[in-house]
Amino acid sequence: MILAALLTSVGINLGLCFLFFTLYSILRKQPGNAEVYAPRLVAEGKSQQTDFNLERILPSAGWVTRAWRPSEAELLSISGLDAVVFMRIFIFSAKVFTFAVIMGVFILLPINYMGKQLSLDIFDLPNKSLESFTISNVDDGSNRLWIHFSAVYIFTAVVCYLLYSEYDYISSKRVAYFYSSKPHPHQFTILVRSIPASSGRSYSETVESFFSEYYPATYLSHWVVRRASKLQGLIKNSDRLYRRLVNLKSANQDRERFGRAGFMGLFGQRVNLLDHYEKKLEDIEDNVRAEQSSALGKEVGAAFVSFRTRYAAAAATHIQQGVNPTQWVTEPAPDPEDVYWPFFSASFLKRWISNLVVIVACVLLTVLFFIPVLIVQGLTHLEQLETWFPFLKGLLRIAVVSQVITGYLPSLVLQLFLYVVPSIMIMLSSIQGYIAMSEIEKSACIKVLWFTIWNIFFANVLSGSALYRVKIFLEPKNIPAVLAVAVPGQATFFIAYVVTTGWTSTSSELFRLSTLVFNFIKRNICRKVDDEFEVPSVPYHSEIPRILLFGLLGITYFFLAPLILPFLLVYYCLGYLIYRHQLLNVYAPKYETGGKLWPIVHDSMIFSLILMHVIAIGIFGLKKLPLASSLTVPLPILSLVFNSYCRRRFLPMFKSYSVESLLKKDKEEQNDPTIASFHDRLATAYQDPALLHVGYSGNSASITSPLLNTAEVNA
Amino acid sequence: MILAALLTSVGINLGLCFLFFTLYSILRKQPGNAEVYAPRLVAEGKSQQTDFNLERILPSAGWVTRAWRPSEAELLSISGLDAVVFMRIFIFSAKVFTFAVIMGVFILLPINYMGKQLSLDIFDLPNKSLESFTISNVDDGSNRLWIHFSAVYIFTAVVCYLLYSEYDYISSKRVAYFYSSKPHPHQFTILVRSIPASSGRSYSETVESFFSEYYPATYLSHWVVRRASKLQGLIKNSDRLYRRLVNLKSANQDRERFGRAGFMGLFGQRVNLLDHYEKKLEDIEDNVRAEQSSALGKEVGAAFVSFRTRYAAAAATHIQQGVNPTQWVTEPAPDPEDVYWPFFSASFLKRWISNLVVIVACVLLTVLFFIPVLIVQGLTHLEQLETWFPFLKGLLRIAVVSQVITGYLPSLVLQLFLYVVPSIMIMLSSIQGYIAMSEIEKSACIKVLWFTIWNIFFANVLSGSALYRVKIFLEPKNIPAVLAVAVPGQATFFIAYVVTTGWTSTSSELFRLSTLVFNFIKRNICRKVDDEFEVPSVPYHSEIPRILLFGLLGITYFFLAPLILPFLLVYYCLGYLIYRHQLLNVYAPKYETGGKLWPIVHDSMIFSLILMHVIAIGIFGLKKLPLASSLTVPLPILSLVFNSYCRRRFLPMFKSYSVESLLKKDKEEQNDPTIASFHDRLATAYQDPALLHVGYSGNSASITSPLLNTAEVNA
Repeated sequence: MILAALLTSVGINLGLCFLFFTLYSILRKQPGNAEVYAPRLVAEGKSQQTDFNLERILPSAGWVTRAWRPSEAELLSISGLDAVVFMRIFIFSAKVFTFAVIMGVFILLPINYMGKQLSLDIFDLPNKSLESFTISNVDDGSNRLWIHFSAVYIFTAVVCYLLYSEYDYISSKRVAYFYSSKPHPHQFTILVRSIPASSGRSYSETVESFFSEYYPATYLSHWVVRRASKLQGLIKNSDRLYRRLVNLKSANQDRERFGRAGFMGLFGQRVNLLDHYEKKLEDIEDNVRAEQSSALGKEVGAAFVSFRTRYAAAAATHIQQGVNPTQWVTEPAPDPEDVYWPFFSASFLKRWISNLVVIVACVLLTVLFFIPVLIVQGLTHLEQLETWFPFLKGLLRIAVVSQVITGYLPSLVLQLFLYVVPSIMIMLSSIQGYIAMSEIEKSACIKVLWFTIWNIFFANVLSGSALYRVKIFLEPKNIPAVLAVAVPGQATFFIAYVVTTGWTSTSSELFRLSTLVFNFIKRNICRKVDDEFEVPSVPYHSEIPRILLFGLLGITYFFLAPLILPFLLVYYCLGYLIYRHQLLNVYAPKYETGGKLWPIVHDSMIFSLILMHVIAIGIFGLKKLPLASSLTVPLPILSLVFNSYCRRRFLPMFKSYSVESLLKKDKEEQNDPTIASFHDRLATAYQDPALLHVGYSGNSASITSPLLNTAEVNA
Repeated sequence: MILAALLTSVGINLGLCFLFFTLYSILRKQPGNAEVYAPRLVAEGKSQQTDFNLERILPSAGWVTRAWRPSEAELLSISGLDAVVFMRIFIFSAKVFTFAVIMGVFILLPINYMGKQLSLDIFDLPNKSLESFTISNVDDGSNRLWIHFSAVYIFTAVVCYLLYSEYDYISSKRVAYFYSSKPHPHQFTILVRSIPASSGRSYSETVESFFSEYYPATYLSHWVVRRASKLQGLIKNSDRLYRRLVNLKSANQDRERFGRAGFMGLFGQRVNLLDHYEKKLEDIEDNVRAEQSSALGKEVGAAFVSFRTRYAAAAATHIQQGVNPTQWVTEPAPDPEDVYWPFFSASFLKRWISNLVVIVACVLLTVLFFIPVLIVQGLTHLEQLETWFPFLKGLLRIAVVSQVITGYLPSLVLQLFLYVVPSIMIMLSSIQGYIAMSEIEKSACIKVLWFTIWNIFFANVLSGSALYRVKIFLEPKNIPAVLAVAVPGQATFFIAYVVTTGWTSTSSELFRLSTLVFNFIKRNICRKVDDEFEVPSVPYHSEIPRILLFGLLGITYFFLAPLILPFLLVYYCLGYLIYRHQLLNVYAPKYETGGKLWPIVHDSMIFSLILMHVIAIGIFGLKKLPLASSLTVPLPILSLVFNSYCRRRFLPMFKSYSVESLLKKDKEEQNDPTIASFHDRLATAYQDPALLHVGYSGNSASITSPLLNTAEVNA
């Protein structure tokens, strides 16, 4: 790619960004769009409706200052620790890349540009290949490469320092958050699985006798899980029917009230739909009630066991309970709202096997996904496109079109492919046997991250000859050399990728195009009135891997093609503003993990650093500076040593709380008069919402919130 | 090697074995050798002295029946669980190789022998190359290889079944052993390290306030560790002087009582040594007392903390104590006799760094050791020996000499080299920061095992071109093919190795040559009277890796060269008898780990299986049966899956005890009146023996046992 094409791409994307911003600042003020652009405020009743005035149709930038203003403490109180940690990714990355820009653009870039290796004309700037800004342009064996060498060392040291202080900061935030938290059911409760079946006794009795024998002083109550998957299906059906009924009732025209009762409303007798649905709903609700009473008897070998103190609950999760380690398996209970109910049928062996199956499926998906990526990759080569579609030849020869195609189209298509991956990973994680939705999301986040790194970074870097991509990793000795040849070659692709995908997807996040369209259709075409509208939560499992991928690109290309760095810095600043705004206006946290996602960020950064070192070893060898190549070898080892120290120093704090913290909280509440009533409510906190469902018929106005009971406990 | 050479080697070694047995059965009955052949019985006062009669100089085999007779329960009560687990290695291996012999010798061996690949004369049996008994002799692409293929599958299944049932058996033994144990100090005590220093308070006060705040109900007492390395040196000196004094006193001749006081008794004034040493001893003991009182003030940031119940102690080791995970680091305390005192000065960071240094040192030692091995390997090639030492040419041409050299010498020299490795590994492990001698031994056992596998198995297999040994493991794709070529070629070497090293070293274990010679010199030349004589304990760290190496040889050569199997079976039967005898008569356990060594055995067996599978994949490819090669690929994966299940199912039981077990024991003792006095004794159980040392001068007849105090607590 030449500089002009890059600038075209930057121009288009800047334009798109400003278009999104302008549209957003106008649309946001339209009353009908409050549910799209400030669902959180609407749900909290804070959304103020303004009368029509001129201001409503003029673009404004007030949202930027509103997003910027709140302090971190305010954000913490509004959106919880997870949101703060999410924002820290941007702050941390901005710090890293500010330093990188200073070193890269002011020191490395001029050195690269002054090299003569590629023997390009130095004065024809617009038609200059971007290659001349990369390390490929530095002369082989030139002593100037020692500056790159020092830059790698200094940059690694700075990133490690920032990683350490960030880990330290977030772990202290985590402890402070725990100290300031109110009593939560999950702090006092553990989940026990693989309860051994004993003849003549129900699981409930077995649990009762086990825990009252071994924890007589601290055991409080338990709640055995029931097999309710059939019930969950029935309730989903009744929910759907009820919503259709509400819609029918609000419809004015009588003709809409009549339809055919058969398949998809196309066949069968013409009936009054209102009566038809009402009868059907009643039938289902009878079924629900019958199923509810029978489900109470269908116990599963798993139970939520509550204790009087946090310490007792924590101790019970840390020590093996039964003599056989595959029985009485304990783990900390998630928040009642966070429980993923469908999981509970799995035994130890079943979960262990499904775990293996998911790992295999995940590896296969990750490895075999490269086929669409390869096709997309082909699009960046105009010549190939011309041979495939000869009739487009004329069109493709137009300068603007060719620049759009090379600069913009490929990453857009790739984007669409990647859009479905997070949902697939969530699905895979959910059958792995996790008990909490937050854990499923965390596990999916790791899966998506590896998927992204393999299928965006490695697939693009090594696509030149697709077959040997797997082969390369079977010959670890050659990896540095292969990467040293392949990675710099894709620098221009990734610069374009940052500008298109990074900038545009972030600003479209603000604009929320799909939600806007969906909302418009719902309101104006379907004319649906939906009392229940859900405030979305941040999809961490798809957002974090994307942000981390840009970090990986920045770190690996830091000394290869420093031109990428300013674009990345812009991306992180943009992201910081926009996500902060979204957290304040759009997203509401569904559950709180207390910042457990940070270790993923840390590990990803360490991986990026080591990848950079491996490439550096290869590059210095390729550039005929073997001494620099050998002297880089200690760097990945030192980084791993640093990482292993951080794992010892900080990771335990993200897994569980210490005795010191737990007992401090327990002691604070010893004399609290409200704790007794909290203990009472604990006994029923972990009931399956399906068993609590009361039904709509009769009192169709009030919708029983399945979380009512648990929400009360949290209060 | 031809069959005749093998038979010569077998003959020589059988002869040596019988010589050792005969000599043993005579020497054992001589009264002066009781300390060599039955130190355990002597220490227990069970050794009966017979008068001189004819029987004393006649060989007998009574020891075989005496070693065979005791049941496993008796062995358990005499030598503890570790000894039982050690014997189970032989029983398990004998089971495995009985099955292997049946399959290998009766099915695979005839098939190999009937092959025509090597086109050897089938009738000249004595001059037959041993190669004709290996898989190399089977025709390429022959369908008979499918029998080998099935044998690999069936053998793997049988080994896995045996591994599972053995793990199950030993873990149940471990729980039963815990249930039947008396209260031990280590069950109630934890070791706390990295205690944070607080200004104005001693460590003792910090520990006291921390544990009485967080464990008010269960905290009992603590004992802060003191820096006593200088004291330990002084006490060692005074011990040596005291022993020299006792020897002098028992010497009859007056002339021995006079000597020079200077360096090594060669220079300086002539003095009465008795007076001289007595004065010197008094000086040292004054120093010891002064140092003892000053050491009491030198506290280290580590303490032994005792609790009222086993459960409380276990809970405290499982949960992170302080908010900072690198402070208040807890772990289960070892038995007081098992504590390795010199370690205590290390802080968290120091221990972490020394850990890294030891790992690097260990890898370097393992990898660079191949130089002497290569020289030894050269000895097996007579031609090379002749070119090095031309004057030996005449001698080497004699048939018997050449057969002895090829059959016996190489492994003997290798043996001498390997003799020092376990001590080096013990040394490395001891600076790694382990607190218990048993843990040092366990860690050294793993190190020696890897060392042995790399330097005996891989060094011999891949020595043909030494340079690429490290290279091969950097190209994992080629490993099967390389091993498939190299491993069968060394079959004859390893058969000889089993016969020489395996058989002879085991029978020399019975004969205890070095101890015998040492004892003889001591008694008859130095005329030393040593009141203190130490009963040795089994050097697990050097014995177990050797036994496991033979297991690895047997498993990898099972389908390649089944001729090795009968020799291995003989080795295991011999080993069973001899070690059983030694455990009953010679070795006394110094400490008890409760069978914690078994997981090492299990992992080693799994590694051997996977190595066999990798070789099988290579061999079937080499033998032009690619289908069989591909069909073998699932086998290592299945073995790993099996192993990961075993790790979940059994390994936790070897790390700690469950709540069920702990509380069962605690409840049993609730009403025990002796437990109060046991609690009292706990307070001083973990005093450094150096601080308890009373001294010899004045009351030089009574030797203060440093373990007196702790032994009392154990009683």
